[in-house]
Amino acid sequence: MAGSRIKLELSRVVQGESRLGVLKGLGRTGQHCLEVPGCLLYSHLGTVPHLTQDTLHTLKNIPAVTQVTLSSVAEHQEVLQEFKGGFKKFAGLHDTVVYCSLHDPAALCPPGYTTNKTVSVWGSGGRIELTVAKFMAIQKTIQPDWYQSMADGETWQSNTSRKRLRKSVDRTLAHLDECLTIHQNSQDLQGVEVFGVVEGGDILEERARSARETAKRPVAGFCLDGFQTGSMDQTLRTQLIKAIAKELPEDKPRLLQGVGRPDEVLACVEAGVDLFEGFFPFQVTERGCALSFSFDISLDPERAVLELNDDETCRAGEGQPNGEVTDGDQTQMTSFEINLKDKRYHDDFRPLVEGCGCYCCVNHQRAYLHHLLVTNELLAGVLLMIHNTAHYIGFFSTLREALANDKLDLLKRRQVILIATSFSVTVTPDGFESA
Amino acid sequence: MAGSRIKLELSRVVQGESRLGVLKGLGRTGQHCLEVPGCLLYSHLGTVPHLTQDTLHTLKNIPAVTQVTLSSVAEHQEVLQEFKGGFKKFAGLHDTVVYCSLHDPAALCPPGYTTNKTVSVWGSGGRIELTVAKFMAIQKTIQPDWYQSMADGETWQSNTSRKRLRKSVDRTLAHLDECLTIHQNSQDLQGVEVFGVVEGGDILEERARSARETAKRPVAGFCLDGFQTGSMDQTLRTQLIKAIAKELPEDKPRLLQGVGRPDEVLACVEAGVDLFEGFFPFQVTERGCALSFSFDISLDPERAVLELNDDETCRAGEGQPNGEVTDGDQTQMTSFEINLKDKRYHDDFRPLVEGCGCYCCVNHQRAYLHHLLVTNELLAGVLLMIHNTAHYIGFFSTLREALANDKLDLLKRRQVILIATSFSVTVTPDGFESA
Repeated sequence: MAGSRIKLELSRVVQGESRLGVLKGLGRTGQHCLEVPGCLLYSHLGTVPHLTQDTLHTLKNIPAVTQVTLSSVAEHQEVLQEFKGGFKKFAGLHDTVVYCSLHDPAALCPPGYTTNKTVSVWGSGGRIELTVAKFMAIQKTIQPDWYQSMADGETWQSNTSRKRLRKSVDRTLAHLDECLTIHQNSQDLQGVEVFGVVEGGDILEERARSARETAKRPVAGFCLDGFQTGSMDQTLRTQLIKAIAKELPEDKPRLLQGVGRPDEVLACVEAGVDLFEGFFPFQVTERGCALSFSFDISLDPERAVLELNDDETCRAGEGQPNGEVTDGDQTQMTSFEINLKDKRYHDDFRPLVEGCGCYCCVNHQRAYLHHLLVTNELLAGVLLMIHNTAHYIGFFSTLREALANDKLDLLKRRQVILIATSFSVTVTPDGFESA
Repeated sequence: MAGSRIKLELSRVVQGESRLGVLKGLGRTGQHCLEVPGCLLYSHLGTVPHLTQDTLHTLKNIPAVTQVTLSSVAEHQEVLQEFKGGFKKFAGLHDTVVYCSLHDPAALCPPGYTTNKTVSVWGSGGRIELTVAKFMAIQKTIQPDWYQSMADGETWQSNTSRKRLRKSVDRTLAHLDECLTIHQNSQDLQGVEVFGVVEGGDILEERARSARETAKRPVAGFCLDGFQTGSMDQTLRTQLIKAIAKELPEDKPRLLQGVGRPDEVLACVEAGVDLFEGFFPFQVTERGCALSFSFDISLDPERAVLELNDDETCRAGEGQPNGEVTDGDQTQMTSFEINLKDKRYHDDFRPLVEGCGCYCCVNHQRAYLHHLLVTNELLAGVLLMIHNTAHYIGFFSTLREALANDKLDLLKRRQVILIATSFSVTVTPDGFESA
């Protein structure tokens, strides 16, 4: 704990806020690194849903960090204890860094079960109530490379009182201190990194206080909690994140929890976020959809409108407008994807995304995916997960390229065009006009 | 049709009935071959359930023939017609021979819908009634390399009357003649092979008549229908198949429909069957089980008992006794598999099958599979399907080796030992004794 091995080397900070760099020294051997802005690899019990390690490794540039959720591992603690080798070995993972988060970002966590001393998580067998002692005992059997400290994150609903928000900040700091005490006295957790959690809901002062106090502790980085899609609009989210960023040291990474939509990712990167959870492609896959938003910044943006027009109209009306507050239901279709169950694809013999080099797009057409989906074939999920993961990884790669080459605005405009197209607007030479 | 390109070259016929050889000249280019006794590759819409082509090809010795069922393709006929390239191209299949069967051997087909002129199949959208004209129109759009002629197979229930059985034989011959007429006048079906279907239920004379009459037609081989697991006991099945085999030419292959259990496969090979449908590993996977029967004939059979004893006791009582008539429910667990959902595996850190070289056994332990299954993880099906397919392919490979080296009895004894062990018998030096 005396000095974390994780080092964030920033190569560029655009407009004082968007950060480009490399997170180095990851893993117990310190040999892994992760480019930021970037996303983690989302997993269920250590593996990307639907995909074997072999299939996963047909994809390029897979994130070096796999996110495992404590909620999914908690009920297997006894077996892990008996197994001894830690979760990574248990799940047959090899060359990856394991980050353990408290909750699954793709699953709803029912509120109302947090107490002064405990936090609850939900496994397949129901609720598991965690004290710090139990939380840390589980970390010792999981043996992750890096974990999120225990936190009271039950404050994302917009009607949460100021008093409750203050309490969540206090509790989360108390949990962190307790975690760090146990951590520092544990042989098993030597070389393991801890991220502190910033809470405070939608109150600027509480957010700043939470960040400031957490930054005083010996943590390797920060989780920004309570910002998940549906909990607040992007303007407020940006404002709060900027305030938090001011209180945090420059050289430690900031991981935003629960945000995965490309437009929100772009806005949060501009506010100073480094890392995102990679659950979005999974959610898209589960609803039978394929990510199809364009992020090619090499194209002339005027031409891009014409190119997109043909394809993207099929998303019209189905997506959510950019930045609108939803009811917290993350299972709704967004404007970044196409719904392959739709009849229009039953005789569409093009790949999911023209020019995409993933296994699915190289080998199959939309019509085949449509038929797999309507007949409930198990392969549909496998193929969609391959494409969606590849597409999302590609988006982050372009995002970094845009940051490096001052093209972030261009990337954002492509997004605007996309959102605009999906709501049927007329493009005029100098702007957009609603139809 | 003037002379089928498919040629069965027999290298060995043991005891006048078990046949070892190679089926040559498969596919439109005639360049594929398949060793017999062997099984086809079971598919849903052209792909092995859960597996991408890439994952599938991590397995060794995959059968060169993929079975597609007309029932699953029938409702997509319009799209296929528009697509024009045929089903193989539509499903992204490359180097495989496509055989189109009428029904899915792993799905029950409700009886009571067959008429003089029509046969019904069930797609995901419900019943599809087929006349020969419609059946052949679908074949023209599928463009398989080889298909099963339309047949009235609704006679597998043991209480079917002799009159109904006679009618099914007559109808099936009439359907075959109609199919052949349309086939011979179709440009699209040039070079495509037809298998005639032998019906007749459990009446020896009807079976012999059906075989004799079908053999007079210009078919490339024979489907033996109405023998599926659960429809009759193995003694009767063996007797009927031997009677059929006497009426069929030596140089044309015999494909047995609906039989997949290893013990039944062995008995049917001894009766003269060449080919089996490969649906059994899929059924085992769907119930969360792993094939674990031993077929290693290089071991001393006495030693084998001791070896198996440890492992196989966990199957005790769960399996079905060898050859017993069941109620036709093929979803019940057999004695050839272990149920990984069982609690006993929650801390079993061994591979599914010790020494198995498949991706799943090399990388994962039973405990991990158990946890994937109890938490309903999607990867469980992928991993089980890999193992079960590899195990089943390996069994057929050993079966041919046993035929080549006069070790079929040894292979059968291993099976007997297995079944015996699973019912807790005491092994005495000269036989088995129930406990």
